[in-house]
Order: sequence, then structure tokens, then C-alpha cells
Amino acid sequence: MQFSPPFLLYLGDASKPLAIKTSRGIADWRPELCLGEYAHPDCSITLGLEKFSPKEAKSKGAKTFVVGLANSGGTISENWIDHIVEAIEQGLDIACGLHEKLVDIPRVHDAAKTHGCQLFDLRHQALNIPIGNGKKRSGKRILTVGTDCSVGKMYSSLSIEREMKKQGFDVSFKATGQSGLLLANNGICIDAVVADFIAGAVELISPDADENHWDIIEGQGSLFNPSFAGVSTGLLHGAQADYLVLCHEAGREDIKDVPGYKVPDLANCIEQNLVIARLTNPKVKLAGISLNCRVVGEKQGRELIKQLEKQFNLPCFDPMLTGSENFVSSLEKTSHE
Amino acid sequence: MQFSPPFLLYLGDASKPLAIKTSRGIADWRPELCLGEYAHPDCSITLGLEKFSPKEAKSKGAKTFVVGLANSGGTISENWIDHIVEAIEQGLDIACGLHEKLVDIPRVHDAAKTHGCQLFDLRHQALNIPIGNGKKRSGKRILTVGTDCSVGKMYSSLSIEREMKKQGFDVSFKATGQSGLLLANNGICIDAVVADFIAGAVELISPDADENHWDIIEGQGSLFNPSFAGVSTGLLHGAQADYLVLCHEAGREDIKDVPGYKVPDLANCIEQNLVIARLTNPKVKLAGISLNCRVVGEKQGRELIKQLEKQFNLPCFDPMLTGSENFVSSLEKTSHE
Repeated sequence: MQFSPPFLLYLGDASKPLAIKTSRGIADWRPELCLGEYAHPDCSITLGLEKFSPKEAKSKGAKTFVVGLANSGGTISENWIDHIVEAIEQGLDIACGLHEKLVDIPRVHDAAKTHGCQLFDLRHQALNIPIGNGKKRSGKRILTVGTDCSVGKMYSSLSIEREMKKQGFDVSFKATGQSGLLLANNGICIDAVVADFIAGAVELISPDADENHWDIIEGQGSLFNPSFAGVSTGLLHGAQADYLVLCHEAGREDIKDVPGYKVPDLANCIEQNLVIARLTNPKVKLAGISLNCRVVGEKQGRELIKQLEKQFNLPCFDPMLTGSENFVSSLEKTSHE
Repeated sequence: MQFSPPFLLYLGDASKPLAIKTSRGIADWRPELCLGEYAHPDCSITLGLEKFSPKEAKSKGAKTFVVGLANSGGTISENWIDHIVEAIEQGLDIACGLHEKLVDIPRVHDAAKTHGCQLFDLRHQALNIPIGNGKKRSGKRILTVGTDCSVGKMYSSLSIEREMKKQGFDVSFKATGQSGLLLANNGICIDAVVADFIAGAVELISPDADENHWDIIEGQGSLFNPSFAGVSTGLLHGAQADYLVLCHEAGREDIKDVPGYKVPDLANCIEQNLVIARLTNPKVKLAGISLNCRVVGEKQGRELIKQLEKQFNLPCFDPMLTGSENFVSSLEKTSHE
């Protein structure tokens, strides 16, 4: 399932920043893939990219119209369909990572057929995923785990990948969610896999590799989120990570969207992740902590980062505030211990 | 998705006992639903039921032809299709719990249409499963957990259900796998649910109930099986069990079909299950141990059961060898502690 850049990022009729987090992830981490943005007249937010209609974008070389929106049901809104069809009529392919499928919408399906465009439904790849086998694989692996959903596991993974490249490591980012898939153009939406195949899917996206190759595997959910911990468990087992990076959002006290559940204590969360990860890699270690300081701000964030470094005696970073240079610099040493 | 007994259990061309474990589960636990068995001439095993052709079975009142076979790919063999079509031509509905669908086989689909018969693909129910919400539910719940797959979680659950009924409890068996679904005629194949919805599916099949009602929820997989622990984790969180029953097969040392992995120590397995179960029910306890003594035989089995009772100070039973009377008798007391 290979779609081509440059992308025209579609923001639909979004009114809240979280609704366009998929587009924002691509614009933040792969600006070189993004030609510009396009939105419904009702859309009240922007990524700050140049605005193009599908026709203008096509004339400037755009190849794929990315439905870069997220919502809880994973549905494609009626409001977006005219624009999706408009993009198809201009000869753009369409990529979408929602639960609802482009191919199931007759107008979209028919227009794509007429204009010879491809529809990429990223959550519905026809993959032949095997059952996880737990066999030790060669190469090195880092998995980001979280105290909760939406704390920064993808941003942390991408920051580590970027910094490792800079420092000369042989490294790949392995996407496990829709935003990651869109920006990496490979991977598997782990949360859309049939339950029996979670670990097998992770084994598939991070196969045997050269001993000096590193896979940075994007985590999902949290062992302490009662909705999604099954996904996180399968990811821990399939990843066989050598190193975990714990991701946390400073200031978050309650588990997102699950009233009555508290974000775990970091030490407890680390220990529980290590216990489960040891089943498939007994040597797994925690290598660092990523603290998302968005809510608490820079000043308090930098203090908290220092405190955590002291408390856990490990590098701590915020992918947006500090970058992961300290973490990656420590990695070479850690991995030779 | 309601199919009707009596059933004609189809054994296909099976040559190994494990291949007909689905049929055997129904015959062992719901003999009153089973009119008889039917098999391919190549089939070398039997359930010991009366043998009927679909025509004979129909004349004796059979309503549903049950494809009671299990295989690792979950496929419907070419060898079975003549017989499935034969059953449809006699006016029987068909129920099947494999991954492959009856409706996707043109001959089967067309015959069902012509003869007005229903096809029940149990793994492919069009259910609207919500994301798990972790909300405390009323009523009491027991979940069977295992040291591995295929150690006797369904048999233990059904034994407990039967014995609780006998002792006057208000109780329901909640199926989570294909055999359980076929014999209970409700439930959800948890392993076929999309990964994001594991816990939500369990919440759906075991909703709020009267404070004195007990749901006995069939477990799946094991936290120590690296292929399927994600499913087991979601089950633990969705079940919100008040009591766990640990199921183990005496004599099994290696995790089934995953070379290099050992069956865990029982104390460790119990502790790990309790740690995870506590997220959604902090009061969860282990209430008993079910020891499958099939391999070690009766004499050694009874000794091991005694040893475990002493070691853990809890009732231990084998659903086939001893039944669960001792466990259920202790439950009333345990649940008032």
C-alpha cells in the first residue's frame, strides 16, 4: 500500500486542534512531504501551510489528498465527501486512516473508478498477518510505552528516529497508528488488527535486521487504560524491545475519556511494562523518559525533566521542547553495557 | 444470531481428537442439544453419538447442522462442502465458528438461498461493539484464566455453571470462543474482535445484573502465551471479575505451539493475573484452581489436587475427574467474607 507525496492535507470542517492531529503529525515531522492544506469553509483552524484547492495543488505536483482527520468513531463525515470527490476529479489519489472506508462510499468509489485514482484505506490493508511466534529476532528495538493514550508516543518515537539519524545510527521508525502510517507510508494500524494477531502484526513490521540496525516502534494505549491495554500488551510482546521509553504528559492526572481511572505512578507504570516486556525479551531495560510539557509550559517542564532525571537516573526529554539529543547520546553507552 | 437445536454435529474428515474438540465440547456439556453426528467416510473418530445422514436427522427433527471442527487456519475444507450443501438441501440451517465464512463459499451461499436456510458465521457477527469504559457493573463475576491456551478454561467455566445451578445459584455461562458460542448460543468470539474493542466486547456480554446473579466468563489464552496475551489482558479488564479461577494442565511444561516458552509457575501466574485484574476491580481474588489431569491420569491427578489445595489453601478441582462441587460450596462462604 504505497501512496505518493507530495500531499495536500485535508482538514475538513474541524474546529478543534485534536481533530486535525493526524495532519499536524505529518506537517510537524514530514514537512518535506506536504505541499499545502485544504479545508472546508467552516474549518476554523489551520496548520499554517499554504492553502491550495485540489486543482491548484495538482498543478503544483500534488499526488495524494490526505484525509488527515481523527474522530472517536473513525467515521468519514458527509461534509467532506464533496471535497474528496473534487480531489479525485483533479486526478489525486486519496489516503485515509479512519475506520470507515473510502471504498464503501459509492460516490467516492465511482469517482475513483472513472478518473483512475487510487483509494488507500490504511486501516483495512489486506494483510496476511501471522499469529505471533515469540522467536528472538536480530537487530535492536526501542518501544515507546505510555502512562495513557495521547501522551506523545508517536512524537517521542519520531524525535528519537530523527536524532538517531543525525547521530549516524542505522534506524527506522515503525508506525502502528494511522498518523504514523500516513507519514511513514508503511506499518500497520495495530488497533485495527483482529485481537488474535496483535503480537503477530508487530513481529511482521519489525522483522529480523542487521545487529546494528535500530527499529523505533511506536507504542499505542497504555497498560493502565482499561479500554486499550490489550493492544499495549500485544505490542510489548510482539516488539521484543531491548529498550522502553516511558512517555507521560506532565499535569495529566486522569486517564483520557475513562472517568474514575487515574494516571499511574511512573515507577509503578515502568515496573509493570518491564514485567510484561520480559516475557519475550528478558533483557529489556528502561532507557529514558519522555515528558510532554505542553500543558505545564516550558519553565515548569524543564524543572520536571530535571527532577525525573534525578529520580530515575536516566535521560528525560520532551520531543518538542528539548529534543531527544541527551537520550540518543546516552544510548550508545547504554547499549554497550 | 440465534440458531436452533437439535443439532447434527458434523465431524468432517477429522483424524485427530483435537480437530473435533468443538463438537466434543457441545456433546460433553449440552448433550440435550445434540441429535447425533455425521462424518465424511474418511473420518476415523467419533463422539459416540448416533450416526445420521442429514436426511435422517431432518426427519427426526434436527434444525441445525453444526460444522463442529477446529483447525489452526480456521478454514473450511473443500472436503466438507458437499456435506454442508447436502444438509442445506435437506432444509437444515448451518452454524460454523471458523475464520472462513460460509457465506463466502458460492455453492453454500447459493444453496442456502435456494432452500431458504440460514447460515450462521459465528466469528463474523455484525455487532456494534463499544470501546471498553471500565465502569463498575452490578452483579458478580468469575473469570477463568490459564497458564496457557487449551488447558480447560471452557470446561472449568461450564463445570462451575452446572454445579452452581445445582446448588441453587442464579448463574449464566458467558462464551468468548467458538465452541462456547455454539453450545451457549450467545456470546462473542473475543479473538475475532478488532483489537481496540476486546475489553468493550467483554463488557457487552456481561452487563449490569442483579446483585445475586453470577456470570461465569470463559477465559481465553494466557498472559504467558506470547501470541495471545493481548486478548487475555483485554478479557481481564473487561470482565471486572470478583473471582478468578486459575486453570492449568498437570504435566504441561511448554507453552503450546510456541517453542522456547515455558508454562509459568502457578504462584507467579496467579499474581500477574491479579495485578492486571485489579485495574478494573481492586477487590478481585483468586477463588480456586482447576487442574486438568487428562495427561497425568486419575491417581497422580488426585494427589496433585490435594497438594495444590494445601499449597494455596483454596479449593482445587478437575472438571471431568472431580467436578467443581468443592469449589462452588466454598463460594458462598468466600463471597461473604
